[in-house]
Amino acid sequence: MKRVLLTGATGFIGRHAIAQLVARGYEVVALHSRRLTESFNTVTDSTHWIRGDLLAPAEAERIVREANATHLLHLAWYAEHRKFWTSPENLAWVGASLALVRAFREAGGLRFVGAGTCAEYDWRHGLCVEGVTPTEPSTLYGVAKDATRRVLESYARAQSLSFAWGRVFFVHGPFEHSERFVASVCRALLNGTEARCTHGRQVRDLAHAYDVAGALVALLDASSVQGAVNMGNGEPHTLGSAAHVLARSAEREELLRLGAIEATAGEPSWVLGDGRRLREEVGFVGRYGFEEGLRETLDWWRKAMLVGSTRSQTQCAT
Amino acid sequence: MKRVLLTGATGFIGRHAIAQLVARGYEVVALHSRRLTESFNTVTDSTHWIRGDLLAPAEAERIVREANATHLLHLAWYAEHRKFWTSPENLAWVGASLALVRAFREAGGLRFVGAGTCAEYDWRHGLCVEGVTPTEPSTLYGVAKDATRRVLESYARAQSLSFAWGRVFFVHGPFEHSERFVASVCRALLNGTEARCTHGRQVRDLAHAYDVAGALVALLDASSVQGAVNMGNGEPHTLGSAAHVLARSAEREELLRLGAIEATAGEPSWVLGDGRRLREEVGFVGRYGFEEGLRETLDWWRKAMLVGSTRSQTQCAT
Repeated sequence: MKRVLLTGATGFIGRHAIAQLVARGYEVVALHSRRLTESFNTVTDSTHWIRGDLLAPAEAERIVREANATHLLHLAWYAEHRKFWTSPENLAWVGASLALVRAFREAGGLRFVGAGTCAEYDWRHGLCVEGVTPTEPSTLYGVAKDATRRVLESYARAQSLSFAWGRVFFVHGPFEHSERFVASVCRALLNGTEARCTHGRQVRDLAHAYDVAGALVALLDASSVQGAVNMGNGEPHTLGSAAHVLARSAEREELLRLGAIEATAGEPSWVLGDGRRLREEVGFVGRYGFEEGLRETLDWWRKAMLVGSTRSQTQCAT
Repeated sequence: MKRVLLTGATGFIGRHAIAQLVARGYEVVALHSRRLTESFNTVTDSTHWIRGDLLAPAEAERIVREANATHLLHLAWYAEHRKFWTSPENLAWVGASLALVRAFREAGGLRFVGAGTCAEYDWRHGLCVEGVTPTEPSTLYGVAKDATRRVLESYARAQSLSFAWGRVFFVHGPFEHSERFVASVCRALLNGTEARCTHGRQVRDLAHAYDVAGALVALLDASSVQGAVNMGNGEPHTLGSAAHVLARSAEREELLRLGAIEATAGEPSWVLGDGRRLREEVGFVGRYGFEEGLRETLDWWRKAMLVGSTRSQTQCAT
């Protein structure tokens, strides 16, 4: 029996993981730190919810004991929009993540997958290749994730724990913070206001949250795959082309204003993950292509904005 | 008023730090985690002892509040002989160190110095130069220290905390674990038994604990110096030459057996720290030269072994 403890289960990516874990035959113990909203408040034969705060003392041990899992998919981290890049909370999440994995291993856990980030790479290289591109992060968030991976990888080797680390790139989808790129373009187009963007020539690895969750689940299931694996789309697209896809789908191309705002100084031209390990070693193929994923996200925003703006602004950090 | 919180104050290096801090005008708040033995049980005008366990929940905040220090010299870490290289306790000390520094900064602390290790470097390079030699540690201990430094360096930059990291190399002196190189040679020579060693051609950066503590204290005091600084002697000497110094001083050269035991497979030929930053930027000169330091340690063992073998075997980890 494969039984997985999923942290960050109500988060932007985590919420898409549960069904895909169940589809692969996992019994899921989903951890949440707040009161569950209705959409999550279900217990099925293969999903159980437990509440706990990984930052509180001795919680890791209790949660691990209660979950009694063979697998651990650890997505929880501090994720408040903008603030997460520099917040001191990153320090607490390093400690909490190390304590969690140690408790999991000491309770007999077998396979761990953690959520890394493209921000671990030195972005001056543009194309990010696992084990080749140097990891020299320029932000506290990137440094904290990179440091966590370094320690856990070494710990896992010493303790014969199966270990992989899914580096997440750029993600869009339901409940994205409304100020982020895809969300803000969708909302402007659907509101009938100008979608003001920078020049749009930035090449980014942009994927739908459902597929990023699917890639992490596939990585968890590919128990022979060890170490860091990019969880991106692997295809080079510009932010401008993403904006065009959205504008065409919304049939509001006249609202698109590429070049209307200044790009941030020092913003990298390229941040693209090499997709080979994910494709060839993990054997993962996403549900959505680049355009299809964006259209799916646009559709979600259309429905969410009909229901009312409060819901669409819900914070879904962990 | 300079007031320093010293962790690991009863440890192998930390015990030599107190007097040198006081000599530089610091008021010292010395943290200990166990019952103090007589030799430490003193409160002077400029030294206060507080008891606390950095691995216990919420202790960092309490200790920091109680210490009310402008400076933090953090030497405490898991240090049990041999075990520290691979122990899962390294994970706990990463978390505890991050929590401590965060609490210190949030309480208004100004200058932090942590104890790093030569094991952060990729030892295949032999000569370890700060900022040049790659830090690619091969042990969990080295990885954990390196990861701690990476996160704290980034955190300190974001929070305008003055930050330095003293990389400790090979240390001998009072209370060294009796199975370690210098201690075991001293004890054999003084017992009149064969001092059985490997070939002795390994080049190491070997310094007396008093001088390593002095270098850390000097680094703390050199508030403009930021980042990693080697805390070694900076002089290339072989372990064989160290053994010869000891044997000559003990007047028992006939007991020395270089080549009597096999060196550990994969043991590096060279581990030497470049001493330039410490000498030129910190401006530190140690009390002991290479030979003088070894003679001092031999003298300590002579007295300790007269007093009785129990005392000399005391563990002085943190």
